[in-house]
Amino acid sequence: MRLLFLGDMVGKTGRTAVWERLPGLISDLKLDFVIVNGENAAGGFGITEDIFLETINAGADVVTTGNHVWDQKDAVGFAGRHEQFLRPANYPAGTPGRGSSVYYARNGARILVANIMGRVFMHPELDDPFNSAEAILSACPLKEQVDAVVFDFHAEATSEKQCFGHFVDGRASLVVGTHTHVPTADCQILNGGTGYMSDAGMCGDYDSSLGMDKEEPLNRFISKMPKGRFEAATGPATICGLGIEISDSSGLAEKIAPLRIGPRLQETVPPFWA
Amino acid sequence: MRLLFLGDMVGKTGRTAVWERLPGLISDLKLDFVIVNGENAAGGFGITEDIFLETINAGADVVTTGNHVWDQKDAVGFAGRHEQFLRPANYPAGTPGRGSSVYYARNGARILVANIMGRVFMHPELDDPFNSAEAILSACPLKEQVDAVVFDFHAEATSEKQCFGHFVDGRASLVVGTHTHVPTADCQILNGGTGYMSDAGMCGDYDSSLGMDKEEPLNRFISKMPKGRFEAATGPATICGLGIEISDSSGLAEKIAPLRIGPRLQETVPPFWA
Amino acid sequence: MRLLFLGDMVGKTGRTAVWERLPGLISDLKLDFVIVNGENAAGGFGITEDIFLETINAGADVVTTGNHVWDQKDAVGFAGRHEQFLRPANYPAGTPGRGSSVYYARNGARILVANIMGRVFMHPELDDPFNSAEAILSACPLKEQVDAVVFDFHAEATSEKQCFGHFVDGRASLVVGTHTHVPTADCQILNGGTGYMSDAGMCGDYDSSLGMDKEEPLNRFISKMPKGRFEAATGPATICGLGIEISDSSGLAEKIAPLRIGPRLQETVPPFWA
Amino acid sequence: MRLLFLGDMVGKTGRTAVWERLPGLISDLKLDFVIVNGENAAGGFGITEDIFLETINAGADVVTTGNHVWDQKDAVGFAGRHEQFLRPANYPAGTPGRGSSVYYARNGARILVANIMGRVFMHPELDDPFNSAEAILSACPLKEQVDAVVFDFHAEATSEKQCFGHFVDGRASLVVGTHTHVPTADCQILNGGTGYMSDAGMCGDYDSSLGMDKEEPLNRFISKMPKGRFEAATGPATICGLGIEISDSSGLAEKIAPLRIGPRLQETVPPFWA
Ligand SMILES: [Fe+2]
Ligand SMILES: [Fe+2]
Ligand SMILES: [Fe+2]
Ligand SMILES: [Fe+2]
Ligand SMILES: [Fe+2]
Ligand SMILES: [Fe+2]
Ligand SMILES: [Fe+2]
Ligand SMILES: [Fe+2]
Repeated sequence: MRLLFLGDMVGKTGRTAVWERLPGLISDLKLDFVIVNGENAAGGFGITEDIFLETINAGADVVTTGNHVWDQKDAVGFAGRHEQFLRPANYPAGTPGRGSSVYYARNGARILVANIMGRVFMHPELDDPFNSAEAILSACPLKEQVDAVVFDFHAEATSEKQCFGHFVDGRASLVVGTHTHVPTADCQILNGGTGYMSDAGMCGDYDSSLGMDKEEPLNRFISKMPKGRFEAATGPATICGLGIEISDSSGLAEKIAPLRIGPRLQETVPPFWA
Repeated sequence: MRLLFLGDMVGKTGRTAVWERLPGLISDLKLDFVIVNGENAAGGFGITEDIFLETINAGADVVTTGNHVWDQKDAVGFAGRHEQFLRPANYPAGTPGRGSSVYYARNGARILVANIMGRVFMHPELDDPFNSAEAILSACPLKEQVDAVVFDFHAEATSEKQCFGHFVDGRASLVVGTHTHVPTADCQILNGGTGYMSDAGMCGDYDSSLGMDKEEPLNRFISKMPKGRFEAATGPATICGLGIEISDSSGLAEKIAPLRIGPRLQETVPPFWA
Repeated sequence: MRLLFLGDMVGKTGRTAVWERLPGLISDLKLDFVIVNGENAAGGFGITEDIFLETINAGADVVTTGNHVWDQKDAVGFAGRHEQFLRPANYPAGTPGRGSSVYYARNGARILVANIMGRVFMHPELDDPFNSAEAILSACPLKEQVDAVVFDFHAEATSEKQCFGHFVDGRASLVVGTHTHVPTADCQILNGGTGYMSDAGMCGDYDSSLGMDKEEPLNRFISKMPKGRFEAATGPATICGLGIEISDSSGLAEKIAPLRIGPRLQETVPPFWA
Repeated sequence: MRLLFLGDMVGKTGRTAVWERLPGLISDLKLDFVIVNGENAAGGFGITEDIFLETINAGADVVTTGNHVWDQKDAVGFAGRHEQFLRPANYPAGTPGRGSSVYYARNGARILVANIMGRVFMHPELDDPFNSAEAILSACPLKEQVDAVVFDFHAEATSEKQCFGHFVDGRASLVVGTHTHVPTADCQILNGGTGYMSDAGMCGDYDSSLGMDKEEPLNRFISKMPKGRFEAATGPATICGLGIEISDSSGLAEKIAPLRIGPRLQETVPPFWA
């Protein structure tokens, strides 16, 4: 199975780039399944239902999120209405929406996708991400209930990300980090067969501070006082993520490589798809 | 000028890999200057004088550090004895050792190297890293006092790293992040001409948690209790960093690309040197 | 029921003061039950089995702890052997020892004591303290299974402490905070009848930094570098805590007041016991 | 000199209680100088110029602030216009307003008041509070330039507060903490003669979460999601702070005791003024 994962869309430039590029990528690369993180799609803060729907329209099969999931007021309302929308699974019972679900890929494979949030330097009040993953995997084990398992692990600390990868190694097809908005160059297949990358990077303007116009963030570091609001940068976007080939028989990773298309970073497409 | 920067050496496997590889890289790639971060060289925690000297022997011109600089007791003693050893510059006045200095490259160029530590999620008690950089640059401006300026910005948060890059953009040849032990894929030349990469990655075993044996870190995430000590992983190391060509006339970046040599990550050498 | 709670014993001076004073207080004030927090009794870091036993010997019915519970190596071993020893309840399943238990007071009343740790600014990786309290209260509700319920809520942030108090208000006899080592002056009976105090303060030397010799903590704030180790202060100790009268019929608080005996703070004994 | 310090006014109930009580206290207790922290006076978030002026009108000589100082947009504008308004001194050079100033008390004494913010668990990006205090004291030493020196040390961590107290011990008349909104019971005169109290507590409704209506804070601890906004509680307020007698000859503390007037906490007025 050919799966494409794209990191946090940031602002209009980021989401537009994804919407424009995705249909072509799906047909050119013969993708079976596409996951996009959308937590910053609405001006950098959260996502609206319209943006979610447009992303699905463009070809995404699932939209994941993270700490910004509730930034837009209407998210609480629409989260529960769309099976293809995921908020972090380790919110407490009773939270609107879902944190994981099983989907059908275009090749007929069943794929479990889970969105989990780390706690270190982040959201200490959430449920234990390791417990959360354990519960999800117990309920729906790879190769018993599903043909592939993908975790979008939305976290800050590289230690938590790597330990999470090792924790589910052999039980998941892919662990891909999001949240730092910087793509990492550490794609690998772990010892147990799980594809791993610490961060997918963002889909946004890389002449910025994490996709936001750099003026106000820089002002805060220097003056320590707010001068204006954080606004999404508006320059041309680079879309970042990874491609992975998942074995039909084992559900584990066969090949994994980064994808970066756009003006500022070194462009690359998974060589096994080129 | 051809400059190689290598990220945090972690443990014996990391430092040994650097010592073995560096002499060949210097001659093969015709390097003019080499900087290596050594804050985790001694079993993952700090650096000893012997390890420092051996790293210089292998061809490093400067060894930088970070939050682990004082982990080995004797660091306080030897920090001041070696001009080629840098601790973060934003420790308060009176701290042993130095945070920046000017060196001569093999091509005769004068190069200012500074080691600065971020504060977000890190060491809030240090002096302001932006102020610190400003002071260093004022005392020794690019193209007036020196031919090149390099910052090893040792920090956790990508926002602080990117804002730091923009802050000195046009006034430095290179800002390269260290500390997360994960190489990023966001090499670029900023608008003002400064080469930038959020994190160089580590020189260590990438089948690990940040270069440390993964058993105890994983145990802590699961059981929340210490079972043993953190120990450096011992598998074969990958050395990670970047290569940069700095203009002799402007002191700014002409070309920048990652370098990764070793078993687990996708290997790469700056194409302009290959 | 007359219950005395004493805050974190710090070092030899703190524990000795408790051991010397407690027998007299029990007989003079006709105490039915005594709880003492012992997380810093061994030189400021954790508690040994001998210190635990000596504290029980002196008249404590329960010894609670907090984030320092495992600082002494043997705690993992003896935690499970003593019903009167509590570690925070919100460690994951499988952690040695227990986080709550039911005891008999000298007046025949059954009393549930639970030790729970906050997460804000503290231990983000622990289980949710509010969930943990809910589970404990469901299993053993006030006036059904027991005649009194006491929570030692070991936490840093006053917001978390106050919200925890309101959360169990009417369902517990007492919520008393520990950990900051500073007694608060906010004793009150909440609207639902639960006695509340944000922090009991410590039993230790108040000419110090939180009971530790002030030289090294102050050095770290100034020089940002370790010079020596943290050691418990050795001057005369003040014991701090509170007295509460719990209704035999409702299990709720009737009267609550601080207790402070020793050289540096204003001394006070609950006036309703004087 | 008789000085009264009142902690953070929270919301309308808090500021109104201060405005109503202060004139009577000044005449009844023959106060020479009054300092009030106003960082939460406007609905819990910051302070407006009108509220500031009304507080001065009620008899305050200085209004200090803290991390909420800039919450109200117009604070940046009026901060610089009023000598009696202080924001934390350890903002960087160029920040509007002032962090310390010298005033005349009603008995003719000159008094230096400084507002400094801690960094632990708080605002890591501010300048070093210990450095900041050192600079202020060097420029205006006790008994040389002024007859009294008071620090409002706005901080979360008790360790930082106590170490700050020891740091200026003998060089200041008073160090009083603010920010936690909970009064502490650790009033003392340090070895060098400086009056000290870890936190003055707030002037607000103590049936609340830190003076805010408890519903939303409690909701966030339980559901981990915002449901509404934080709003100041509206029940009757208790005013909290301390009284100190400062020696005319030495400028050091002679007597110190808490003051608490209102419905929910144990009421007290410094006995040496009663
Ligand atoms: Fe994001
Ligand atoms: Fe995020
Ligand atoms: Fe490191
Ligand atoms: Fe580091
Ligand atoms: Fe403690
Ligand atoms: Fe503690
Ligand atoms: Fe406040
Ligand atoms: Fe505050």
